[in-house]
Amino acid sequence: MVNFQKKLSQGLIQVYTGNGKGKTTAAVGAAIRALGQGLRVCFIQFFKPGENFSYGEQKILSKFKNLKLHYFTSDHPYFEKKISRSEIRKQCLEGLEFIKRIFKENNFDLVILDELNIALRDGFLKWEEVLSVLKSKPKNLEVIITGRGAPPGLIDYADLVTEMKPLKHPYYSDIKGRRGIEY
Amino acid sequence: MVNFQKKLSQGLIQVYTGNGKGKTTAAVGAAIRALGQGLRVCFIQFFKPGENFSYGEQKILSKFKNLKLHYFTSDHPYFEKKISRSEIRKQCLEGLEFIKRIFKENNFDLVILDELNIALRDGFLKWEEVLSVLKSKPKNLEVIITGRGAPPGLIDYADLVTEMKPLKHPYYSDIKGRRGIEY
Repeated sequence: MVNFQKKLSQGLIQVYTGNGKGKTTAAVGAAIRALGQGLRVCFIQFFKPGENFSYGEQKILSKFKNLKLHYFTSDHPYFEKKISRSEIRKQCLEGLEFIKRIFKENNFDLVILDELNIALRDGFLKWEEVLSVLKSKPKNLEVIITGRGAPPGLIDYADLVTEMKPLKHPYYSDIKGRRGIEY
Repeated sequence: MVNFQKKLSQGLIQVYTGNGKGKTTAAVGAAIRALGQGLRVCFIQFFKPGENFSYGEQKILSKFKNLKLHYFTSDHPYFEKKISRSEIRKQCLEGLEFIKRIFKENNFDLVILDELNIALRDGFLKWEEVLSVLKSKPKNLEVIITGRGAPPGLIDYADLVTEMKPLKHPYYSDIKGRRGIEY
């Protein structure tokens, strides 16, 4: 067991949800802020391609010694029709087991669960399953959960919840998926 | 004049506003994403302490070769009573002149104007002054403007506006200003 000196006296559960831009991006910013102050960060992404680092932030985050990146369920049935719901469910449960272990080992100051809300919203994980893991969060660990459609139970349980609300959206016909901006 | 190959075919004006958490943090994440894809970033902060890099993100961002950090008006009368409004106004105008020059030189893919909304909200800059500079934005440059209280004129002029809306806020008595989380 590593003798890890925690830097936060109190860690909250933060949620970034809503249909607007900036949820994952804010989590990336939070990771960078934490790294800048010497905190240790575990960044766990659901429903994002992991291995080839297609997102700009992955290319940068993967280089920090004090940050660990992990991926679960790279696919989502919305994009990959061939993948079965039970396979996704299995991968989400593996992710949840991993989070449980990370909480138990308690070697980080900040753990980010990027797009975990999607697993809840789309029924791959049950709120009770996630709640039981969140209850094992170490007191001095900060957790940030992102994704659209945070369930009422999570909003109730979290300490701080921000809704990213789109006040104005551009027509995406020409500008969807700009490298360096959207991914 | 640098022969700089732009990487975006179309650049938008994005605004992050509202009373919730995550505005500057999302801008930091956007900068990291852009850097990860080889874009060049100019990060201009208003009303933030610059020289000693007290924010975690400043310590990290300042190390990237492809990112330039600039500071204007480190103080705000709300925190520093001795500073006069006309002095702040002068510094904000200097910042605006600088933005104008950055737009003209056109050597970046992404320019972030962190807390510029505060200068507008608190009357240190007039919307017409800012608008006249925004009108000179190069077509292929992305601009992100953050801060509470984006004026209606900016919301109207911007392409994409996200409101960070606090759904739930913790009691800040014990946890205000946690190093690595809030700064």
